[in-house]
Amino acid sequence: MNIAVIIYTLGRVIALEAAFMALPGIVALIYRENVWWAYFLVALLGMLLGLLVSIKKPKNMQFFAKEGFATVGLSWFLMSLVGALPLFISREIPNYIDAVFEMSSGFTTTGATILTSVEDMSHAANFWRCFSHWIGGMGIIVFLLAVLPMAGSVNMHLLRAESPGPVVGKLVPKMKDSSQILYLIYFALTLIQFVSLWIMGMNPYEAICTAVATAGTGGFGIYNDSIASFSTPIKWNVTIFMILFGINFNVYFLLLARKFKAIFKIEEVRAYLGMILLSVIIITLSIFRTYAKFGDALTDAAFQVGSIITTTGFATCDFNEWPSLPKTILIILMLTGACAGSTGGGLKFSRILIGMKAVKQEVNSFIHPRSIKAVEMDDRALDKNVVKSVCVYFVLFALIYFGSVFIVSIDKYDMVTNFTSVLATMNNIGPGLNAVGPSGNFAGFNYLSKIVFIFDMLAGRLELYPILLLFAPPMWKKH
Amino acid sequence: MNIAVIIYTLGRVIALEAAFMALPGIVALIYRENVWWAYFLVALLGMLLGLLVSIKKPKNMQFFAKEGFATVGLSWFLMSLVGALPLFISREIPNYIDAVFEMSSGFTTTGATILTSVEDMSHAANFWRCFSHWIGGMGIIVFLLAVLPMAGSVNMHLLRAESPGPVVGKLVPKMKDSSQILYLIYFALTLIQFVSLWIMGMNPYEAICTAVATAGTGGFGIYNDSIASFSTPIKWNVTIFMILFGINFNVYFLLLARKFKAIFKIEEVRAYLGMILLSVIIITLSIFRTYAKFGDALTDAAFQVGSIITTTGFATCDFNEWPSLPKTILIILMLTGACAGSTGGGLKFSRILIGMKAVKQEVNSFIHPRSIKAVEMDDRALDKNVVKSVCVYFVLFALIYFGSVFIVSIDKYDMVTNFTSVLATMNNIGPGLNAVGPSGNFAGFNYLSKIVFIFDMLAGRLELYPILLLFAPPMWKKH
Repeated sequence: MNIAVIIYTLGRVIALEAAFMALPGIVALIYRENVWWAYFLVALLGMLLGLLVSIKKPKNMQFFAKEGFATVGLSWFLMSLVGALPLFISREIPNYIDAVFEMSSGFTTTGATILTSVEDMSHAANFWRCFSHWIGGMGIIVFLLAVLPMAGSVNMHLLRAESPGPVVGKLVPKMKDSSQILYLIYFALTLIQFVSLWIMGMNPYEAICTAVATAGTGGFGIYNDSIASFSTPIKWNVTIFMILFGINFNVYFLLLARKFKAIFKIEEVRAYLGMILLSVIIITLSIFRTYAKFGDALTDAAFQVGSIITTTGFATCDFNEWPSLPKTILIILMLTGACAGSTGGGLKFSRILIGMKAVKQEVNSFIHPRSIKAVEMDDRALDKNVVKSVCVYFVLFALIYFGSVFIVSIDKYDMVTNFTSVLATMNNIGPGLNAVGPSGNFAGFNYLSKIVFIFDMLAGRLELYPILLLFAPPMWKKH
Repeated sequence: MNIAVIIYTLGRVIALEAAFMALPGIVALIYRENVWWAYFLVALLGMLLGLLVSIKKPKNMQFFAKEGFATVGLSWFLMSLVGALPLFISREIPNYIDAVFEMSSGFTTTGATILTSVEDMSHAANFWRCFSHWIGGMGIIVFLLAVLPMAGSVNMHLLRAESPGPVVGKLVPKMKDSSQILYLIYFALTLIQFVSLWIMGMNPYEAICTAVATAGTGGFGIYNDSIASFSTPIKWNVTIFMILFGINFNVYFLLLARKFKAIFKIEEVRAYLGMILLSVIIITLSIFRTYAKFGDALTDAAFQVGSIITTTGFATCDFNEWPSLPKTILIILMLTGACAGSTGGGLKFSRILIGMKAVKQEVNSFIHPRSIKAVEMDDRALDKNVVKSVCVYFVLFALIYFGSVFIVSIDKYDMVTNFTSVLATMNNIGPGLNAVGPSGNFAGFNYLSKIVFIFDMLAGRLELYPILLLFAPPMWKKH
């Protein structure tokens, strides 16, 4: 294990995070809130420390997959620990574990909160919470490499470890250019949403917080009722942008490259949009009788479906009150999540599709034992190892999931709360059902449960292995 | 598809089932119950029809995997349809779908019932319900082949399609001998339990019903409170025999062959027994405060763990009333199920172990990218395809599971009932939680849900593919 390069990279990550932390400090100054010092202090210390350890480039830049996983796993842990400091030292969140929970939830774009009333927080704190979604959405390492690329193998292994989805595709031959294009698309989409929300009646502060939280598919709100009290056009704005940020970003790249035909060929995107349409129709039909206007039922159904499938977690109504059928659909969407290569979490549609194709192949092998047809996706044959890895990913997911539910069930809550709270954190959604439903929060759990949730949020965002490998003893053996 | 051999085999299965049906007829005569004619009538007609279609051996005995799957899938459907007839025509279960549900539940050794009071049924009906567990436990095809073996490839493909577990091991070189040995062990263990229950104070009728329902790990009771009102020694007798019938039957074969060392090497059995011990300890510790005596808590914990992990489904208390932790453990045990090659259902410990080893291999491949270590089980390297098939099996399981929950959630029940009722039927357990808990039943579901449950019970018992393939159009194409 090349510890020197890992520390060097961690230094850069912390320095970058510290630089971002000046933004909430400025927000505090604008709103004349007396918490400004906490953000600037941590920013200053973080920058100093970060630059100190990363000022000298290590001589040995050997970097393999395992270094990539370790760096990314540690980066995200550290980011949450450092990001929690201003909330903690300003006493806005007086307990450090709670503060770390909140910032892990922020960076992993989960949106689960331990706050019982977000409206009691300073503008600075709420901005920092929402902005952490934006940083985490596309990945801080991706950002770092877009700004400060490192040696080739370092770039590749870091990007692979942080990027979501079963296959990491480079948009253009150079990783650095890929990262820059991704962030440009990300920034442009966020900007368009910010402006449109402002025009639709939000004030600039509301618009920027909502836009960055939507872009990262995070879901931290700045009001206790999330998006419920905003106008219908704003609800639809957020619905559409959530869905857009849940699409594989390759689509936008292909759009820019004017390869329109290629877009329609992407099976994952077709499945994702088809699932949204189907879910909205079924849910609208099962809830519209309880609404005065059919349009309101449609708005709520579309918003909740968009919010859950993209693992954002905003809400415009309490879907806890819905009948079993729509709730079951939401649980299925919580599992699937959005597209690979988007800012959304979950198992990802491409994995589900590959899993289904693997089943189809297995069934066919019974009917035609001599057939050797490979699993195909988007008209290309998939490598056998990719198919196996996807299936193994499901198994690992289930193992961590049930292990977590087991520990959380020592706590005082009911079964539905336990099972959905773990799903909501592990797939970076935010709300679950019952006690952790849209009108609930994670404040009441004991610290053991909260630590499990922090682990699950990080493991879920980084697709399990970078976090899991940190706890694998062979990782740290000298070879 | 060789339809002629399939019909020929189905005829034999029905004739065999019809022969077994004389037993409840005799029970009715003994207890002077006026339902005797229903059993003898169906037995007679079944025997005639069965012998009629299987009297002439088809010329073409070509038989491949797909014929094996189709025959087994259709056999089990047909067995349930025919087995339900005496209950239906005697008006003891006046609705035919309910009767088919009850007998599917019987043959698949699920033990879920649509009866609100089993004590109102005739002795004949309850005997037939319990005895169907015994027929289904080891498999009717296995029985058929033990008595009337067919051509080599027919034997092999039939046995593979019906037997549980990821790898079908032959005990001895000849399939026919394997089937006979399995049934001899099965019969001997059942007999020992029957005698011991009789000695411990059950009357012969209670003892035989309880023994056959335990042997098949079925769980149909003859009293409304299942085993709760019997003495503590009887509870422990049933606990121990449930656990014994959930063990891979290879163990008993090795015992008979005096290969004691080989027994301790079987990882699946060690994991299974370890899981039982751990679960009993944790559950006892979390419930003993609510009991007057520690011993009673231990008895209940051990009984419920044994009942759920072996997917039997007997109960001595209402575990619905337990706190979340023990209930979560039970749900995990509902998923794992018992050992492959036993009469128990569920995903099977060998599959879980192979899945975990596949995860470990994947993790290792990140740390040592050039390693090509195979997945090992019981000190032998597993074929790559077996590992892949096991992982694909989990994916297919999840797809059918969530699809079923989706349809069932159209019904009127809560989330916990919906999610556990599908698990309880698909993994052939019997009781779930809430409305389908130990003191509940499946009577209140609508017919759509009941048909889904019938499908799930059959699919679960036959390990998905034999039932799934019946609905695959390419199966029925001429080639």
